[in-house]
Amino acid sequence: MDFTYETAPGRVIFGRGTVRRALPEEVARLGADRVMVITGPSTQALAHTSVAPFADAVVSFFTDVEEHVPAAVARRAVARARDARADLLLSIGGGSTTGTAKIVARDLHLPILAVPTTYSGSEATPVWGTTRDGRTETGTDPAVRPRTVVLDPDLTDRLPRDLAVASGLVALARAVEAHWAPGASPIGSAMADEAMHALATGLRGIGRDSLAQAQAPEKALSDPVSVWAGTPTTAGEQLLYGVYLAGATFASTGPGLHHRICHVLTGSFNLPQTALHAVVLPHVLAFNAPAVPRTAARVARALEVEEAVSGLRALVASVGAPRTLAQVGLLLRQLDEAVDRVSATLPVENPRHVGKNEVRAILTAAYGEAA
Amino acid sequence: MDFTYETAPGRVIFGRGTVRRALPEEVARLGADRVMVITGPSTQALAHTSVAPFADAVVSFFTDVEEHVPAAVARRAVARARDARADLLLSIGGGSTTGTAKIVARDLHLPILAVPTTYSGSEATPVWGTTRDGRTETGTDPAVRPRTVVLDPDLTDRLPRDLAVASGLVALARAVEAHWAPGASPIGSAMADEAMHALATGLRGIGRDSLAQAQAPEKALSDPVSVWAGTPTTAGEQLLYGVYLAGATFASTGPGLHHRICHVLTGSFNLPQTALHAVVLPHVLAFNAPAVPRTAARVARALEVEEAVSGLRALVASVGAPRTLAQVGLLLRQLDEAVDRVSATLPVENPRHVGKNEVRAILTAAYGEAA
Repeated sequence: MDFTYETAPGRVIFGRGTVRRALPEEVARLGADRVMVITGPSTQALAHTSVAPFADAVVSFFTDVEEHVPAAVARRAVARARDARADLLLSIGGGSTTGTAKIVARDLHLPILAVPTTYSGSEATPVWGTTRDGRTETGTDPAVRPRTVVLDPDLTDRLPRDLAVASGLVALARAVEAHWAPGASPIGSAMADEAMHALATGLRGIGRDSLAQAQAPEKALSDPVSVWAGTPTTAGEQLLYGVYLAGATFASTGPGLHHRICHVLTGSFNLPQTALHAVVLPHVLAFNAPAVPRTAARVARALEVEEAVSGLRALVASVGAPRTLAQVGLLLRQLDEAVDRVSATLPVENPRHVGKNEVRAILTAAYGEAA
Repeated sequence: MDFTYETAPGRVIFGRGTVRRALPEEVARLGADRVMVITGPSTQALAHTSVAPFADAVVSFFTDVEEHVPAAVARRAVARARDARADLLLSIGGGSTTGTAKIVARDLHLPILAVPTTYSGSEATPVWGTTRDGRTETGTDPAVRPRTVVLDPDLTDRLPRDLAVASGLVALARAVEAHWAPGASPIGSAMADEAMHALATGLRGIGRDSLAQAQAPEKALSDPVSVWAGTPTTAGEQLLYGVYLAGATFASTGPGLHHRICHVLTGSFNLPQTALHAVVLPHVLAFNAPAVPRTAARVARALEVEEAVSGLRALVASVGAPRTLAQVGLLLRQLDEAVDRVSATLPVENPRHVGKNEVRAILTAAYGEAA
């Protein structure tokens, strides 16, 4: 046993109604009396209601958040926080909202209190990112990790089902890969097991619910929120909890082979990132499992399946996620280039040696029957 | 699901040889150039060897550590650190050494880099304590939790077996109770499971080793270190890891019913604290298990036994720990007073209601067959 494990200062409050019950106290706990609220168009109403009990302490409302954190928007948020002499950033929204707050935190060294309204998991990590002209810039800075996170399942239960599934699978990839990522540790693996179990429970809950809707279409039609997940209570809680914990684990273990492959394929071929995770993860697990049988057994136990690789495949299939690189839009003639591009980023720390031949084997298998 | 979970900033480096390999780098990482070394008489030589690579940065060597951190000794350590204008406290030793460093950290707000040489677990907690005229004063202060912990099993493998067993059982009590302590959370429970598994593995390893020695007494006699645990490599690593993780978990979950009982009995009847933990824990688990079957199942799984209560009893028995309050020195005529004293500290947050009748039932069962 040989490992390094590091924790950052942080506090998470989880539970239904916590935004109402806990938010004022958490703002006070951080010693803030000049709060800048950061939110997006769709969460403005929620943000206004949420801060009403401490409205006197709110010095600015930044509501111009845009998807993928455009650099220009982030710059405006930084200027606004500086002008308002804010001493706390309260982000209420999805990943782009948290992401905008992170840039302000990075530049002005202000603490963030994050209230996520999606399953992005960004609230648990020290990773920031901005986009400019379609290009992404990312980095890691402990200062951008939210100091306090309020997780209220009431805010996330009604997210669109496809988004919930996609986010849950991205988080599952973080948790599975935690077992062999460069910063892997037994503590990180214990947290990853817990995260995997919560995510599998949540994803299965969503899967069942969707099936029930399919069997009762008349209900779906008459129900004005039928396009939403309408996740059973437990599934929604487990997903929100699992996504947070997977993010926190990822923050300590970092990315490994799976994330390397997804990162290269997304950047090179403009493929949808979340769908890629669902496709690639079972193949990386299948590649590594023989070298780390104990890890495979842990993954199986956490997912509550007999065998890790087949169990993960079945879970991905049960929520209707794509299964092949062909399905997510990679063309057969791009496969060689994909192998070359991933191979160009080697070496990668991994329990099994990964050379160009191994990359080819993984991507060919992931491509699907046609390759 | 409803919980609050908090993490403190910290870093742990675990592995054989880490004192030699990692200590200089970790001192540098904390930005220290005026290190005060705190150590006890038995670890002086180790301390001198360990700091040789950065001897220029050592401004003081405090070697007067005494057991149970006498307040007068702690005061001298504080004065020494102030006079030396230390910017880092490097504690190399057991619980009393870490404990002495904690008082200096509390009073002067200096960071601690802890190198534990026993299984005390103090390096993982924000709890400090001093003694004066046989009385203990304790408190909690985030500032006293070591910022960096270097865990090197090479330093702890040869601890006396009885001490290793006692410390392992104290840690096991922290981990088991984490499931229902006031600060319990699913994240804390996941860490507690991992800690329990490591501790059970370590304790069983020690048990087996002791049995092997009993079967080969001539070897024990001829071996100059036969009074030491001589724990198998894996057992020693698992114990050191489990003790640390149980301490870190305890730091977030806090004490519950079990610790309340042990605290009162130790203070009121001057009973040996570590032996008490071994006696009381199975009875508190037996009391709570019917109310929290899922927790009992988790404990059983982590201990790798069929059923939690009987499995814990068997584990405690296998390492030769005391089984009854009578064995640890409580007199039968003191039992009523013990019930009164524990009951006087109620209420306690617990999954089952605890009144005086319940305290009497638990303590009577724990007293043993004669009660």
